[in-house]
Formats: sequence, C-alpha cells, structure tokens
Amino acid sequence: MRITVNRKAHFNAAHRLHRKDWDDETNEQVFGKCSNPNYHGHNYELVVAVTGNIDEETGFVMNLKDLKKLIYDKIEVPFDHKNLNVEVPEFKELNPTAENIAVVIWEKLRKELASHLDLEVTLFETPRNFVTYKGE
Amino acid sequence: MRITVNRKAHFNAAHRLHRKDWDDETNEQVFGKCSNPNYHGHNYELVVAVTGNIDEETGFVMNLKDLKKLIYDKIEVPFDHKNLNVEVPEFKELNPTAENIAVVIWEKLRKELASHLDLEVTLFETPRNFVTYKGE
Amino acid sequence: MRITVNRKAHFNAAHRLHRKDWDDETNEQVFGKCSNPNYHGHNYELVVAVTGNIDEETGFVMNLKDLKKLIYDKIEVPFDHKNLNVEVPEFKELNPTAENIAVVIWEKLRKELASHLDLEVTLFETPRNFVTYKGE
Amino acid sequence: MRITVNRKAHFNAAHRLHRKDWDDETNEQVFGKCSNPNYHGHNYELVVAVTGNIDEETGFVMNLKDLKKLIYDKIEVPFDHKNLNVEVPEFKELNPTAENIAVVIWEKLRKELASHLDLEVTLFETPRNFVTYKGE
Amino acid sequence: MRITVNRKAHFNAAHRLHRKDWDDETNEQVFGKCSNPNYHGHNYELVVAVTGNIDEETGFVMNLKDLKKLIYDKIEVPFDHKNLNVEVPEFKELNPTAENIAVVIWEKLRKELASHLDLEVTLFETPRNFVTYKGE
Amino acid sequence: MRITVNRKAHFNAAHRLHRKDWDDETNEQVFGKCSNPNYHGHNYELVVAVTGNIDEETGFVMNLKDLKKLIYDKIEVPFDHKNLNVEVPEFKELNPTAENIAVVIWEKLRKELASHLDLEVTLFETPRNFVTYKGE
Repeated sequence: MRITVNRKAHFNAAHRLHRKDWDDETNEQVFGKCSNPNYHGHNYELVVAVTGNIDEETGFVMNLKDLKKLIYDKIEVPFDHKNLNVEVPEFKELNPTAENIAVVIWEKLRKELASHLDLEVTLFETPRNFVTYKGE
Repeated sequence: MRITVNRKAHFNAAHRLHRKDWDDETNEQVFGKCSNPNYHGHNYELVVAVTGNIDEETGFVMNLKDLKKLIYDKIEVPFDHKNLNVEVPEFKELNPTAENIAVVIWEKLRKELASHLDLEVTLFETPRNFVTYKGE
Repeated sequence: MRITVNRKAHFNAAHRLHRKDWDDETNEQVFGKCSNPNYHGHNYELVVAVTGNIDEETGFVMNLKDLKKLIYDKIEVPFDHKNLNVEVPEFKELNPTAENIAVVIWEKLRKELASHLDLEVTLFETPRNFVTYKGE
Repeated sequence: MRITVNRKAHFNAAHRLHRKDWDDETNEQVFGKCSNPNYHGHNYELVVAVTGNIDEETGFVMNLKDLKKLIYDKIEVPFDHKNLNVEVPEFKELNPTAENIAVVIWEKLRKELASHLDLEVTLFETPRNFVTYKGE
Repeated sequence: MRITVNRKAHFNAAHRLHRKDWDDETNEQVFGKCSNPNYHGHNYELVVAVTGNIDEETGFVMNLKDLKKLIYDKIEVPFDHKNLNVEVPEFKELNPTAENIAVVIWEKLRKELASHLDLEVTLFETPRNFVTYKGE
Repeated sequence: MRITVNRKAHFNAAHRLHRKDWDDETNEQVFGKCSNPNYHGHNYELVVAVTGNIDEETGFVMNLKDLKKLIYDKIEVPFDHKNLNVEVPEFKELNPTAENIAVVIWEKLRKELASHLDLEVTLFETPRNFVTYKGE
C-alpha cells in the first residue's frame, strides 16, 4: 500500500544561464535574456514527494516535521537568498537551469532518505515553467 | 486510449492526531501540536482522478456530473463540517493522518466506480502538505 | 507618500458557531452545520496590511521581519492548532465568526503598532469566504 | 536520466457539448446546460509536459522558448478567442469535451516533437475540472 | 465598527465585444479578437463584498448562506453556461465588457440588499484581467 | 460612475537591499540575508489598477490592449531579467525595496495615463509579501 506525501517549500535566488566555455554571442543566442551577466532571479517553489508504505503505528509515510526540517537544512539554508552561480558549489561548473537545479536537489535529498522510500522533486522556476525529476 | 479526468472538491473538518494506546507524552512527542486534545481543523481540498477510455458516443470518460454527485454523497456529506475522530466511523480506531484519510476516501470511492476505471485521490491538508494514493 | 505593506500568514484551528444563551434548535437554525457541537476547522489565511510613510533611510514602511515576528507571536502562537472556542480566551464568550476573529486579530495587532501606522486585516476562512476589517 | 519540463499556457474559447445525430432532448439529458445551443465558454489552462534526457551542453530537455512558441503557433493561434465547434476544424464532427480537446492538442503537439521526447498534456476546463492525456 | 464580508462565486459564459451600430472593421479595430462573431468565453470569477456592522447577536454582517443563495439566484442562474449577448436581456443593447458586466451585477445585487449595507463587486474575466465596482 | 480595471503582469529580476553609505554590518543588521552582496531574486507579480468612468461608446475605462502594451513597454522591458541595482537607473541610488519599486513603477505609469484616470499599483515580491501604492 504505497502512498505519496508531498511537502511544499520555497527559496528566492539569483542565477544566470551561462557556459564559461562558450562566447557571449553563443550564450545570448541559446539562453537569451536568461544569460544576462548581471543575473536575474526567481521565487522558486519546490514540491518534494516521498512515496512509501504507511507506518501502521503512526499513520505516516514519514513525519512531515522531519521532511520539513530536511528540506530546510539541505535546500533552503544553502539556496535561499543566494546567487546560485556564485555561492552554491554544485553550480560552479554546472549551468543552473531548472532541470539541473532539480537534479541537484533530488541528489541532495535522496542520500538523506531511507532506501525504501521513493523520491520525486518538482521545481517551479516561475508559475508557468516547472520541472519534475524522480531519478530514473 | 486512456485519459484521466479530475474533479476538485473540498470539505472542512476538525481532527487530532492521537493513538488511544499511547500515553499523552508519546502522542505529543510524535504528533506535536497536531495531537491537541481539543482538536484543530483544516480546509481539505480533494482531487479525484478517474482514468479510463473515452466513450466514443459522449466524448467522456465518465460524466463529471455523476462524479461530482458521487464525491458529494460519499465524501462531502459524511466528512464536511464534522469532527473526523468523533463523528466519522472510519476514524474511530484509525488515526486521521492525511495518509489514512486519503486511503479511506479511495476505498469509499473505489467500490462505487466501474472496474475498468482506475482511481487516484490527492488530498491537500494544507496548501503545503498533501498526499496521493492510487491503491497500489 | 503613504504606502501599504502586506504580509500573509496562516494558522489551522477548530471552531464552532454557537451562542450559549440560545437553545440547540436556534443555534442550528442560524448557524447550520457550522454549529456542530463536535467542532469543525479551517486553514485560516491572514493578510496583515500596514500603511505608513516610507522611511527614507531604509526604504521600508516597517521591516517585514518585525511584522512577521509580531504576527507569529501575537496570532500564530495563540491560535495555530488550537480550538478557538475552548482554548483562546477572547472567544470564551464571543462567537468565533470570521468577522469576530478578524476584529480580535486587528485589536491584538493594533496595540503593538506605532500610532502613525494604519492597520487592516483580511482573514480567509475558506478560499471562498473572507472578511476585511480596518477598525473604522 | 529522464526529466520532465512543463510549460503553462492558456486560451479562451466558446464551445457547446452536442451530438448532431442526437435529438435535443438526448443532448440535454446527457450534457445538461453544457449543450446550450448558444454556447458558453471557458478560460482553458493548458500544461504541456515534455520528458527527455537533459542535453549536457545546454542543461535543457528542450529550450522552453521553442516549446512556448510551438504551443503558441499550434494551439493558441487556432484556439484562442475562437468558437471550438464552429471555427476549429478538428471539432466539426468531434464533440469538444475536455477529453477530446486534450487528445486533439496532444496529437497536434506530438507530431512537432522529436521522437525521443515523451508528451503529456493537462487541460483545465475550469479550476475544478481537468483532464490529463499522455497518448497511451 | 464596519467590516466587509466577501463571498466568491463563478460562472462560465460566452460573449463577444461588439456594437451593432459600428461596421465590422471598426468593431475589429477597437475590440480585436474579442469581437469574433462566433463568440469566445470565460470562466468568470466573482467576488461580492458586503460592508456593514457586525450584528451583536450572530456575529455576522449578514449570513453568508443568504449571500451565497442571493448570488446563486440573481447571478449564477441567469448567467452561468449562457451566451451573454444572446440570452441575458441586460446585454441585448449593452456591450458585455467586464466593466459593463460588473455594473449589471452590482445593480442586480444592490436592490436585494438592505440599505445600510455597502456593496462592491470584483469580476475576473481572466486571472490577469479584472474589474472592481462599488456604485460610486 | 467610477470603476477600476486591473491588469496583472510579471517580471523576474535580481536585487539586493543595501545602502552604499552604511557599512556591511549595518546593512546586514537591517536587511539581513536580503543584503547578500551577490544578489538574490524574485518573480515579481504586478497588478496595475486604473480607475475612471466607463466610456459609453466602448464600454471600457481604457482598452486593456493599450494598458497591457504600456506595462510591457515601460515596466517589463526595462525590469524583466535585469539586476535592479545594477541595470535599472532609478535604483542606482535608491534601495530597491518592494516599497520603492512600487513607487517607481507608479511614477513611470502615472505620466503615461490621462489625468482623469486614477492609478494604483500592487507589487508582489513573493506570494507572502506585497505592497500597494496609489500616489497619495
């Protein structure tokens, strides 16, 4: 009896889309105004979905207090009010597209969760653009 | 050609998280302020997703008027403006976590739907906490 | 140059609409299912709007960190995960309608704010029912 | 490493649910007020989900600028501010239920996307009624 | 002690923007694709705000059950799933812009409310376009 | 007969809260993590409200096509995907708090609107923090 519990969180960050090994013209051509060298930013909304069996004792898949704290410690503290390109080590060499940010978040959370739990993350870059990743 | 139709509904209810066979301290430790003996409450939002083939005559998987009525009769009438722990028989012995409420809703609706239809329910306890169950 | 800053907060609570000096039939007639003696509940969403001049030094009407903390201390701590009728002293004798809750919140916050600031509170009982009060 | 990118779009349109080969009474019985011969309408919200591998060069599954333009050219231009029954050729003989509209949108977009990409469309007819189709 | 209670409702309708006394070219020039002779439509969201004193007995400005029924009888029944230009008498000669629809709604509700109550209506034509009218 | 028409728009931008004439410690004390020298960012949502009489010919206060274009030209083009502190001249010496951004937007739009129209702008920095300014 597998069920999915979801927890929403958010963080605000600056970023730019940019490859150091491309010239400015190519960056501009592929990434458009998202490659602005002075950065722009987003209110990222994150949905973390954990799937597992319901614990018969508690009625929980996992205690959402724990999931909330995990997201806070591992994602919100290092990402919130930060410049992703400059201050978050994972994006020193990796282009912070919504896709890549979602994969990084998934990998950071995956290693903190018990192995019998499945994990999916959804990241809204804007209310109209979002990505979903489940590690497959 | 399987397609999913979704219908949103809502109900307001009081509940507390609590196990009768645990002492107060353990309930408090596991469930925190959700175990308040005087109850608290939520505006539960429910999404019922029914998957099936499109009927060639009507262009419907099922008539949403029927699905709306089914949700009203089987879920809203018994749950809305109720105290889940006290007044809803399914939770007399079952802790009304979001997970358990979602399973109860799924089971109540499953027996009313034709067997060729698949069912998934999503239950929002708050805009930030929600669960999804599809009976697998 | 008056400007309004708004901060959203939320709390979950149980309540019932009920007058002790009315018999059950009258309570039921006026308040309907909202008078259920076993309580029901809501995810209350609160918008606190503070109007004042922009401080030329900071560019703030007031620091939202302070407003957030004020709402937390004065409203969320005493109201969240509580039974309004039973546990919140202001509603011992006062019917916790959305109107009365909004007035109580306004009065609790008003006394904490500098007198040159205007205050308005909006309280959503559900996404479809909400009230606005500005102390006039 | 499959990941899904989603793009939201919208269009406003008139429609009615109606079968030419049924008499008025049968149309009314099955489709209710949705069969009004003078039409009614909706703000349709569309979510297009494309699943594929992340391109290592760009960090994109596909450039959302291209997906946005594709949705605009193939769906918004022919559907927005139109009468679906009268002006959109796909619905000359096909009843424009949410299910059928979603399938038509899926088929129009599917032929424009590279074959290694998977496609799912979600169409909101109202905030409470929506359908999801992935071509299976 | 004036307070405002708000109730949200919605209706789906077809319309077109059009003046009979203008030629097609002028209609097209001023109203653009909104003048499509075959109509388009919207999910209109309506917020009705009633301001008055709190009744000390009930704790209500007015019973929301009554306001809900009033909106249903006077607005939803005549407008929902209708073609505003063709089927709603108020728009036989009046162009159904959001502004004009809001004024018509206000006038229909105003005459049903006690004179000591103030009324404001907000009408969303789309999530991005909306109007507010309070009869002044 | 005054009525208000509202148009929503949005832009994504980077910013930091910071006064050049304060030392780092004071900036940090007052503005907290919002003063991060590497910037962070937001999806700003903007609601522009224009109040006037309904033109009897068109049924409009003003044509929303014109208002949409005005917001695009005067606000979205200069602000979207920009670093407010670095690239938007109005914030070279002015701290880009939500309050100050709202005032700048109001002033830019005010000079483009006919004098018989009133203007109010609401700017959401996040879904929980927003400001409203009407030039009084």
